[in-house]
Amino acid sequence: MRHTVQEIATALGLQAAGAVSFEITHAAEPVGAASDALALAMNPDYADGLAQGDAQVAMLWEGADWQALGLQAAIFAPRPRLAMSGLTQMLDAGLGLDAGIHATAVIDPTAVIGGGASIGPFVVINAGVVIGTNARIASHVSIGLNSRIGNDCLIHPGVRIGSNIRIGDRFIAQAGGVIGADGFSFVTPEKSGVEKARETLGDQGDVANDGQGQAWTRIHSLGGVEIGDDVETGGNVTIDSGTIRATRIGRGTKLDNQVHLGHNVQVGEDCLLCGQVGIAGSTKIGNRVVMGGQCGASDNIFIGDDVVAGGATKVFTNVPAGRVILGSPAVKMETQMEINKSLRRLPRALKQLAELKAEFKANFGPDVQKSVSKSDENT
Amino acid sequence: MRHTVQEIATALGLQAAGAVSFEITHAAEPVGAASDALALAMNPDYADGLAQGDAQVAMLWEGADWQALGLQAAIFAPRPRLAMSGLTQMLDAGLGLDAGIHATAVIDPTAVIGGGASIGPFVVINAGVVIGTNARIASHVSIGLNSRIGNDCLIHPGVRIGSNIRIGDRFIAQAGGVIGADGFSFVTPEKSGVEKARETLGDQGDVANDGQGQAWTRIHSLGGVEIGDDVETGGNVTIDSGTIRATRIGRGTKLDNQVHLGHNVQVGEDCLLCGQVGIAGSTKIGNRVVMGGQCGASDNIFIGDDVVAGGATKVFTNVPAGRVILGSPAVKMETQMEINKSLRRLPRALKQLAELKAEFKANFGPDVQKSVSKSDENT
Amino acid sequence: MRHTVQEIATALGLQAAGAVSFEITHAAEPVGAASDALALAMNPDYADGLAQGDAQVAMLWEGADWQALGLQAAIFAPRPRLAMSGLTQMLDAGLGLDAGIHATAVIDPTAVIGGGASIGPFVVINAGVVIGTNARIASHVSIGLNSRIGNDCLIHPGVRIGSNIRIGDRFIAQAGGVIGADGFSFVTPEKSGVEKARETLGDQGDVANDGQGQAWTRIHSLGGVEIGDDVETGGNVTIDSGTIRATRIGRGTKLDNQVHLGHNVQVGEDCLLCGQVGIAGSTKIGNRVVMGGQCGASDNIFIGDDVVAGGATKVFTNVPAGRVILGSPAVKMETQMEINKSLRRLPRALKQLAELKAEFKANFGPDVQKSVSKSDENT
Repeated sequence: MRHTVQEIATALGLQAAGAVSFEITHAAEPVGAASDALALAMNPDYADGLAQGDAQVAMLWEGADWQALGLQAAIFAPRPRLAMSGLTQMLDAGLGLDAGIHATAVIDPTAVIGGGASIGPFVVINAGVVIGTNARIASHVSIGLNSRIGNDCLIHPGVRIGSNIRIGDRFIAQAGGVIGADGFSFVTPEKSGVEKARETLGDQGDVANDGQGQAWTRIHSLGGVEIGDDVETGGNVTIDSGTIRATRIGRGTKLDNQVHLGHNVQVGEDCLLCGQVGIAGSTKIGNRVVMGGQCGASDNIFIGDDVVAGGATKVFTNVPAGRVILGSPAVKMETQMEINKSLRRLPRALKQLAELKAEFKANFGPDVQKSVSKSDENT
Repeated sequence: MRHTVQEIATALGLQAAGAVSFEITHAAEPVGAASDALALAMNPDYADGLAQGDAQVAMLWEGADWQALGLQAAIFAPRPRLAMSGLTQMLDAGLGLDAGIHATAVIDPTAVIGGGASIGPFVVINAGVVIGTNARIASHVSIGLNSRIGNDCLIHPGVRIGSNIRIGDRFIAQAGGVIGADGFSFVTPEKSGVEKARETLGDQGDVANDGQGQAWTRIHSLGGVEIGDDVETGGNVTIDSGTIRATRIGRGTKLDNQVHLGHNVQVGEDCLLCGQVGIAGSTKIGNRVVMGGQCGASDNIFIGDDVVAGGATKVFTNVPAGRVILGSPAVKMETQMEINKSLRRLPRALKQLAELKAEFKANFGPDVQKSVSKSDENT
Repeated sequence: MRHTVQEIATALGLQAAGAVSFEITHAAEPVGAASDALALAMNPDYADGLAQGDAQVAMLWEGADWQALGLQAAIFAPRPRLAMSGLTQMLDAGLGLDAGIHATAVIDPTAVIGGGASIGPFVVINAGVVIGTNARIASHVSIGLNSRIGNDCLIHPGVRIGSNIRIGDRFIAQAGGVIGADGFSFVTPEKSGVEKARETLGDQGDVANDGQGQAWTRIHSLGGVEIGDDVETGGNVTIDSGTIRATRIGRGTKLDNQVHLGHNVQVGEDCLLCGQVGIAGSTKIGNRVVMGGQCGASDNIFIGDDVVAGGATKVFTNVPAGRVILGSPAVKMETQMEINKSLRRLPRALKQLAELKAEFKANFGPDVQKSVSKSDENT
């Protein structure tokens, strides 16, 4: 795949200068870049690196003096990450899927697959499935009964899509994800120790000791999963089906690798849930929420629109819209920062407290009230 | 799949009233329910929703006035979640597997598979495997050498069962789980910095600086995994084989999505380990233990029967039976609640302490002992 | 697989004594060991167990009196875990793969596979792939465009290797891992609330409220993954490709189950990352670093050589070489130990502080300065 500097600039809506018909085959960091690379130096910090590579052309920060940098041509990117988005999309070679349906794929005759599909080896598509146009479905993917996927999906190898899943257009699923597992929902014939502990926050009652009545019976998940347009799911994610209603993921939301969503969870639009985030059953997350890696949320709570949670934040209770939170249990980020500072001082502070108490006692002991009263009387 | 109200009530052992021959095709939440749905309103809070849907029949709380709710028939569920278990099982359409062994499955001639099996496309079953009756094994599953699975198993797509795994009856495995990975067990020819740090709780000795002798050599896992009857494993779980003895999971225990069990771990009976729980090697967990999402346990510790751990609890040391724990490191739940409250007050408390100390000093300074002694003498 | 005691001793470079031609078929713990087992009792604590089994031969601690223990022969292991490594390797039956390429495997004609390969059913190998000699690749594995793997690899079932991945010799991948997923890298046309919150540590500015400009656009990952010799990856790991440069894992490093590495992460040599560790994008980890289970690291930080992190440690900032750390946020292990002790005392300490303050006030109230001054004047 070769592109001229001008082709790239035009595609990205950016300005180019110099020998814009120069052809590149790939993008590279400036240091060690080959002569057919587009070097990426959108920040003056990377300028020195250009001399340590053979790149003839580069993408630079706005206003950069490309000629002084010894380049033959340049593209200027005032918002570098946005330019990266367009550029990396242009240069992505894709999964290498052949057009059409691979001979080894097992597709139920009742399944309907739109035009322009590329379906790889060993794919299994069950009865009643409907898939839109231009599907790209890589090897070893399985899709359960009656699930529907919109147009232009890109499903990496080994993704497991269960039964009764409804997905919008432009869905991207990284490898190994499980969408539509049975929820973790069990019941005991009699009230369990856990139910009691939750009610009383700590006391399990007699159940803990008698060890009776705790054979768990499954509540099956019939509600499936509903996923809006432009959603992406990461590698090895797990998303449970809802019990009666669907588990829902709103338009534009992206889930990173190993994210886990329990049954009946609702995630709003344009959210980012980073690696290994876990959301327990029936919790509702608003729009534009961002949760850093390894965050967790308890079941049956609400996290408002525009909430931002720092890495490893554990959310046990509702969070109002717009709040920036951190810690376990989650509090406002600035509060957690103060708590963290205080924690480092805590061991010394406890010593000081003990000393102060001792000093106070030594001075005023059991008689202090009297003695001070006396000295007051003297005045 | 159509069921009359009476069929459902009879199957669940519940009372029904009204036009009990009314047929439903599925269950639904009351709001927006279709006319062929069984609406689920087992709590008076959901009663209003019935008017916002077309459901003619519903499952209601005990003693509900179904006629006043405008229904044609009703089933009464005194313990709603238990009723849900039976109902969702009745209405689950399953995986859509055809009877028999799919033509594409690769099954070693020495493997023995019981009667009534449904085995999907691209399944691989290795030499020496024995599987009981009525197995339902979905597409892309692989089963390693000499593993044994009891009757009535249900294995979702893409599950990886390793070699030398012994599993009881009625096993359910959600998609993508790995059962019987090699344990994370390595050794260095010389004592490593980690071993020293564990011994001394913090000081690595010279190893950290000399960077010698740390090429890790694998200890292979030969012990396999032993799993009792009625066990379920979630999507993308990972369970390591034991080194010499087996990693064990007791009867009736359920693991949620992305649970990780290290090598030689023993989990008792009827436990629930929620999403993303991780248990490090050789740790022993009792019966009826419940661990909330993202809990973790160190290696080589014991967690007693009936322990309940709140979400994200990290267990570093042994926990006695029956305890309800929370936090990192885990303490009794009520202790953690108090610590959490205290933490929020901590920054202010440290200020108060500093002020008090300053005030004390200002008043009594270095001479305070003397001056107070003097005033004592005055009395 | 039968081995004489002498064969094992010789292979492990250890001393043997007694009837060294005795043949064993497997290794076992002493209690309940069969008569054809090699009992493992490398510590005097296990000696009693030998009487509770039928083992005739055992591996013992150095200097053990094997005859007094009633054995016919013994091997002596001065460093037991090292002996376990060699022994378990000898006794591991492997994956049971047949020699050659299975008839069902789909291998692009442009792929090059070295001599001695065993490639299982339903494997997919894409165009441009190069694999060294003696590859053992189990069922359902897929390998993307132009990826290269060295000699003697062992890839368990269902591993997903993406495009443009370069892996050294003796690579071992446990089942279900995803190597080379697209990184979690998105950009909004306008600055997002998250970017603002990170800059200001808490204040999202107007973005949180206007809800504009937050449709995330993907930055594709073109850099692939580079993995050194002797690396192992656990079950269901996820490793993202780098954006422009590669995500890198150094020689000899081992990743446990469900480890997650974000895009552009660099992990040094001989590291151990335990179960469920997550490393966010572009973070750099030195050599010989050990991170306990469920540790996490923020993006764009450095963790120095020989750092050891206890379980569930969350690293938000750079860590100097050689440090042993614990807690969230990570601090020196001994500091965290002190903080943990202090935390348990905190609720009581806050009460004491309040009492002391009250007592101080009661005694010296608003007039204390004066009254004390007076009593001073009395002296």
